[in-house]
Amino acid sequence: MDIQAEVRKKAEAAKAASYKLGTLSTKVKNEALLAMAHALEQRSSMILAANAQDLEEARQKGVKRSYLDRLMLDENRIAGMAEGLRQTAALPDPIGQGDYSCVRPNGLSIRRVRVPLGVVGIIYEARPNVTADALALCLKSGNAVLLRGGSEAIRSNIAISSLLAEEAYKHGIPEGAIQFIDFTDREAVGVMTHLTGLLDVIIPRGGAGLIKRVVEDSSVPVIETGTGVCHTYVDESADLQMALDIAINAKTSRPSVCNAMETLLVHKHVAEKFLPMLDEAMLAKKVELRGCDKARAICPEMQPAEEIDWSTEYGDLILSVKVVDDVAAAIAHINRYNTGHSETIVTRDLVNAARFQKEVDAAAVYVNASTRFTDGFEFGFGAEIGISTQKLHARGPMGLMELTSSKYLIMGEGQIR
Amino acid sequence: MDIQAEVRKKAEAAKAASYKLGTLSTKVKNEALLAMAHALEQRSSMILAANAQDLEEARQKGVKRSYLDRLMLDENRIAGMAEGLRQTAALPDPIGQGDYSCVRPNGLSIRRVRVPLGVVGIIYEARPNVTADALALCLKSGNAVLLRGGSEAIRSNIAISSLLAEEAYKHGIPEGAIQFIDFTDREAVGVMTHLTGLLDVIIPRGGAGLIKRVVEDSSVPVIETGTGVCHTYVDESADLQMALDIAINAKTSRPSVCNAMETLLVHKHVAEKFLPMLDEAMLAKKVELRGCDKARAICPEMQPAEEIDWSTEYGDLILSVKVVDDVAAAIAHINRYNTGHSETIVTRDLVNAARFQKEVDAAAVYVNASTRFTDGFEFGFGAEIGISTQKLHARGPMGLMELTSSKYLIMGEGQIR
Repeated sequence: MDIQAEVRKKAEAAKAASYKLGTLSTKVKNEALLAMAHALEQRSSMILAANAQDLEEARQKGVKRSYLDRLMLDENRIAGMAEGLRQTAALPDPIGQGDYSCVRPNGLSIRRVRVPLGVVGIIYEARPNVTADALALCLKSGNAVLLRGGSEAIRSNIAISSLLAEEAYKHGIPEGAIQFIDFTDREAVGVMTHLTGLLDVIIPRGGAGLIKRVVEDSSVPVIETGTGVCHTYVDESADLQMALDIAINAKTSRPSVCNAMETLLVHKHVAEKFLPMLDEAMLAKKVELRGCDKARAICPEMQPAEEIDWSTEYGDLILSVKVVDDVAAAIAHINRYNTGHSETIVTRDLVNAARFQKEVDAAAVYVNASTRFTDGFEFGFGAEIGISTQKLHARGPMGLMELTSSKYLIMGEGQIR
Repeated sequence: MDIQAEVRKKAEAAKAASYKLGTLSTKVKNEALLAMAHALEQRSSMILAANAQDLEEARQKGVKRSYLDRLMLDENRIAGMAEGLRQTAALPDPIGQGDYSCVRPNGLSIRRVRVPLGVVGIIYEARPNVTADALALCLKSGNAVLLRGGSEAIRSNIAISSLLAEEAYKHGIPEGAIQFIDFTDREAVGVMTHLTGLLDVIIPRGGAGLIKRVVEDSSVPVIETGTGVCHTYVDESADLQMALDIAINAKTSRPSVCNAMETLLVHKHVAEKFLPMLDEAMLAKKVELRGCDKARAICPEMQPAEEIDWSTEYGDLILSVKVVDDVAAAIAHINRYNTGHSETIVTRDLVNAARFQKEVDAAAVYVNASTRFTDGFEFGFGAEIGISTQKLHARGPMGLMELTSSKYLIMGEGQIR
């Protein structure tokens, strides 16, 4: 098989369909999404059978249990995917919304309206539910998609995407708008990242390795998502019980996600009081602490933190801990080591709170709250396609609006310049 | 010299300065811009002397007269650069503007505000005035800059950038915020395009070759600007005199710019009447016409258009002409061959006008006006850093707002999830 030709053919089909898809009414898109949700539930046995084969092969390869868990589908998870499609149908349609208008002195009337990006490429890893989620958000925002899932979930993904595409085309979505790369050759990713002019953006969803590879290799614009080295800074004036509650929540409520805390910074004047509280509470939650020298002078049972710890996204029950001189030192540490995701200060000091929010360079900067809130649902945007950690186009949780571009519509009466 | 190390050092200095620059008040930024404008005029002789050397060297190399004209500075052009700085000072400051806010059911208060991108890399060609223009827009929007100009203008660019940097630093802009690559090795471009984590965006300004090279090579996000294969479609119902006025304006008022027309499409039912009018008027303006077979059947003195003509940005007094069956054929031709810049329909038909604006995929879609209006001043945004022809981040004229990103500021009272 000629991988290059095959991938390009799919992208061309998506591009051709994207023009019509971009002008569909909200009603047609919503009806298709609801029909797709219904079909998922009606025909779940077909999906579960494909998933059972993927699971069997993964087990034979001896992958980790946590990996199998991500790969595994059951009736509940399929119902969850269907529910996601219905929720996306219920969200407001951004397409056609105006966000600027004026009449120029020469009489030209200018409006700027939201339009789809065109064709969105999504490269993702294990979870087959991404196939349905990503597809729903792209369709609702009028975008065609080219999906490339992880090889371990290939049968599940083919089952889901072909079922959803078939149902979508029955309900007014133009044929070709939903493309899935139905073979596992790794070369396909390299081809996708060079389809300039066919793909308008690529969104990689997965581990830091995948994202780095795509960013470095792609000539198609990429939106970086989802790596989070998030910090909690406990200021001198913090309510220490609040700080402890926030720290426990940010570290332990779901340690594998990108908005979980990886490093705790504490002001030197409260370190002696706070760190033993932290140490005890984290021990109870089975969190391993890795401290700087000053932190270990207070809590000697902490492991020593190495330089690499400050920039590591553990995604696990591990926390690095550092004592800092003041809020300026905390900000400097964060701006040096963070990934631009989510940071929080616990403080009663208005000036320090304002300074932290102004100077910390990240998508979401909190005062007195857990970093775990950075996601589309918690921010009130509904489902998200990822959390952008770059500054271009979109920053933070990316919902439907972030899957759009704009277009200037200008009405004249014969104006020339 | 170690080019890699040298370029990286400049980018690191810009990055370090960017944190402070991003929090400067509008007042400080404006005062610096006004002082820089004053210094340009006061010390123009130093710039003109450097420019004379560049011109002399270019003449010896035997470059084209039009190229020399772009390179050349005089008192008027320096006054124009100073005026640009003053106009930028007068524009509203986008930094800190809020564009979203809500209070969530759990009491979290969320605001989204505009923040600088951070460090903007600009890679440009001959015109030395870009040094001052780009620098002013970046500073006003709180961004540090790393500039790389064309090698032919190296002395002029060094004179301008060092003068402006010196003056900026005297007036509160943090040292290091303005970086210029003061050597001509081409390797520098390749280094710049891989400074992921130091540069937040690269904006190439120049010919299609430069832009393509940067887009394909860069792992730093790029905004594509400035290539325009723009179309004028003369519909069946058009006022043909209006269509002619628009066509003449779009082709001949400034043929070298990106919003000039390159291809004219005409409905088959009016081609016999319109094309002879066009032919005569364009002949008077010394425009060479290249027609499709049907156009040449009406005006046999047209050159035959080749396939390559439909996708060529002539930037010159050449126009390709095609007869189409209807508005749908016009839209299909445009979406196949355009660069996503500016397109116009001349029509009295409301349905065709609406369809054209909805279905044509471009940054600016006009009804009954010349495509020449696509620029920042004409749209009311003031100066522009370029015209984006991509869909991500910014589309169309990019002013100060398009040089910003956003940040979520979240206030809590101890909320955990």
